[in-house]
Amino acid sequence: MLTYDLSQRAQRTLYEYLYHCIKQDILDGTLSAGSRLPSKRELAKHHQVSLKTIENAYEQLLTEGYIYSEEKRGYYVSALDTDSGGRQARHQHHIPFSVYGSDTSSPSNAALAGSGAATAAASPFADFTANHAAARLFPYDTWARLIRGILSHGDHSLLQELPFQGLYALRVSIAKYLYGFRGMQVSPDQIVIGAGTEYLCGLLIQLLGRDRIYALEDPGYRNITERYRANDASFEYIRVDENGLCPKLLYESRASVVHVSPGHHFPTGSIMPVARRQALLEWAEEDAGRYIIEDDYDSEFRFSRRPIPAIQSLRHNHRVIYMNTFAKTLAPAIQLAYMVLPRKLTERCLSAAGGRPCTASALEQHALAAFLDNGYFERHIHRMKKLYRAKRDNMLKILEKSRLYPYVTIDEKDAGSHFLMHLNTALSDTELKWLARQNGVLLDCLSEYYAKDRAQRAHTIIVNYSDLEEADFQRALEILMLAV
Amino acid sequence: MLTYDLSQRAQRTLYEYLYHCIKQDILDGTLSAGSRLPSKRELAKHHQVSLKTIENAYEQLLTEGYIYSEEKRGYYVSALDTDSGGRQARHQHHIPFSVYGSDTSSPSNAALAGSGAATAAASPFADFTANHAAARLFPYDTWARLIRGILSHGDHSLLQELPFQGLYALRVSIAKYLYGFRGMQVSPDQIVIGAGTEYLCGLLIQLLGRDRIYALEDPGYRNITERYRANDASFEYIRVDENGLCPKLLYESRASVVHVSPGHHFPTGSIMPVARRQALLEWAEEDAGRYIIEDDYDSEFRFSRRPIPAIQSLRHNHRVIYMNTFAKTLAPAIQLAYMVLPRKLTERCLSAAGGRPCTASALEQHALAAFLDNGYFERHIHRMKKLYRAKRDNMLKILEKSRLYPYVTIDEKDAGSHFLMHLNTALSDTELKWLARQNGVLLDCLSEYYAKDRAQRAHTIIVNYSDLEEADFQRALEILMLAV
Repeated sequence: MLTYDLSQRAQRTLYEYLYHCIKQDILDGTLSAGSRLPSKRELAKHHQVSLKTIENAYEQLLTEGYIYSEEKRGYYVSALDTDSGGRQARHQHHIPFSVYGSDTSSPSNAALAGSGAATAAASPFADFTANHAAARLFPYDTWARLIRGILSHGDHSLLQELPFQGLYALRVSIAKYLYGFRGMQVSPDQIVIGAGTEYLCGLLIQLLGRDRIYALEDPGYRNITERYRANDASFEYIRVDENGLCPKLLYESRASVVHVSPGHHFPTGSIMPVARRQALLEWAEEDAGRYIIEDDYDSEFRFSRRPIPAIQSLRHNHRVIYMNTFAKTLAPAIQLAYMVLPRKLTERCLSAAGGRPCTASALEQHALAAFLDNGYFERHIHRMKKLYRAKRDNMLKILEKSRLYPYVTIDEKDAGSHFLMHLNTALSDTELKWLARQNGVLLDCLSEYYAKDRAQRAHTIIVNYSDLEEADFQRALEILMLAV
Repeated sequence: MLTYDLSQRAQRTLYEYLYHCIKQDILDGTLSAGSRLPSKRELAKHHQVSLKTIENAYEQLLTEGYIYSEEKRGYYVSALDTDSGGRQARHQHHIPFSVYGSDTSSPSNAALAGSGAATAAASPFADFTANHAAARLFPYDTWARLIRGILSHGDHSLLQELPFQGLYALRVSIAKYLYGFRGMQVSPDQIVIGAGTEYLCGLLIQLLGRDRIYALEDPGYRNITERYRANDASFEYIRVDENGLCPKLLYESRASVVHVSPGHHFPTGSIMPVARRQALLEWAEEDAGRYIIEDDYDSEFRFSRRPIPAIQSLRHNHRVIYMNTFAKTLAPAIQLAYMVLPRKLTERCLSAAGGRPCTASALEQHALAAFLDNGYFERHIHRMKKLYRAKRDNMLKILEKSRLYPYVTIDEKDAGSHFLMHLNTALSDTELKWLARQNGVLLDCLSEYYAKDRAQRAHTIIVNYSDLEEADFQRALEILMLAV
């Protein structure tokens, strides 16, 4: 059994320390490629720490590719040098993957650093992982004016608690918006507003039950996995291909609820064709108690095609729960999310909620209702799409003129604020990230969003361009020449 | 097995309908006193409805006293006429307990209605259950001015998401407040701000684990029980006496976490003496992993004594989680709650939260920080205490002059916005509530807050006076003469 002295962890959290220890053992060969790690439960018991701590440590190691999981068998140490075609010798250990943590000591193999010198990582000048454009482009003055207006016309009624479902006026505005832009016919009574998607997801798991199995997309947002994990709900991963989640695979799973983003999948950008949408609905119809959670969080930003109707807008939608948030489209600080429940679930939700008040800010709900009703939201989305599109075109032009161009293939450039850039490199993703980080470029790889088969998806960089300066992108492309 | 035709429920929710059916069966004698109800699980399976539905129906029946529970044995039909000393005949059924729902048809025993006529319930003129004073007394103009100021001095940084723990400036303000008013030495790093206590409680259960048993106060707020139930956490009730929760009983339970309100218990108003507080801390110390959740939600409003230091302020407090909310002291629409975690738990909390943003409104967090720092909060609390105290004195004077005075005993008049009024009556609490409701007075009885031994606590009315008009109270006391 792996045994580490937890008292040596100094300022680190338990999970960070365990992650660090296991990583070191992998890097220095104490744990060899292919060897099996103890089960999370065993290791938790052995160190008398919570299961969560071990889960977090293993998850981090998985994410960074140090270990891999085999379903129902366990966790195994990855062969760190296979991805790079045997180019690097087995003894290349002690590589400081400085992008995670403060460990910026020099690498043992200086050639990997590109610069040829064993230096500390450069301070980052380009961050391919950032996506904060929404807040920068948000019409702050309009928003502030609306809030001022509400404060002066408002009275003490603004201070009374809102019903659990949220401000009725906002629910009407959302229903109108969904009708106009997503083709959904929804009553305000079916809408529940809450303080963020994390909260609503927890509520939904309470409502549907923790004893079910939830199907999650692979690849997909790690945040979503994290929500189910935090709520002690079991889940299985279902493969996403170029047409989104594969409904056929649902039948092979034990899941009775599927969490899916058919409108615009992150990070692949796939959009689910209607045949699959119908197949999903059929799957849901076949057994009482099956549900589809349609996570529509950034469908607003697709710009190359017409918006695709939500699954919720199709016939037989009484098994569809639609979710969206304004944190993505307005500003991250505006934690207003909502879900549209089938009527039966709405009843159960309200009965379970008892007389509890709505969690989201009343003042901001008033402001958002006015923002939607006066067409500001529509204009904001329109403006953002235009800017994203122009930015994307610029970025692609810069790429075409760069020395890196012969080595890349661009995928999914119809998405709102990112594209996928496949790089013809012999480096593993871990090495690629480290190389970039050492030279001032922060990046995420597509493989990190996969739970299974991540090796097959290697060498694809997710380029979030909405926050990137053109000159910095150009410079970053030069850096990536070190990898080809 | 009880069998009802659920298709007959029309507009009612499943749980309401089941509650209604079982109630009717009890009232018309189909289910006789002392007979055992099917287990919740059996009944759920039999009707193919969720366990939650049955739980809600049974809970409502428990609350209203139609059934009672015996630990580890099950649910039994109450003897409805025993409380009233056999004064009422067994055939008194079909009593419409109109306070719950729209069923306001005439009672079969008109004498009980007081008026002597079989009439529909009067529209309520006095609501002893309401407690909305905070919003009415809240300095709205000051609050609005602070928000306007933040909007004009603020910029796009207001739109960036806040870290999971919440706005640092607000955490500093809260830490200062807790130091000054609750004797607590707390670092802002230990504070987590969230959108309401319900959300924070869910977070805490995620953190501490659903596999534990939580000890809850009996009597206590049903909302608190509901939070644990919704999060699928197991709980046991621990008796509260005139000195608060009994720590000795914790040793007889399987609980490893206790949720307790030592500062001011609702509804009994008891304040836990320091010896018991220390006993609680000792209990927590005796076993690794034990925790005390100190729910301090309205300790601000005690006016007859000096504030009592929080358990968190005692030595050896590393097992104490302190929780409080501003929804009670400011306005119900301001869903800002916070908790103070021991350092180890803070680490685990942040590690589990990953990079998730804070759920509470950023704008309101900025405003609250200014509200605290400028002394407005202190002044507001001071003003409310003064008003509550004056109101209490008036109410007690009215009571002393009333015809009802010889029949009542007043308990717990040191509490902030309610007192307990024991009535010398032969009616059961269910009958008392119904009688009052028929004549326009809404009231809650102390017994409803008990999970066990509720019969022993009969005939005590909770008088929330902060929203009551003096004249209406006077009139309500006359109505209650019908019960003595």
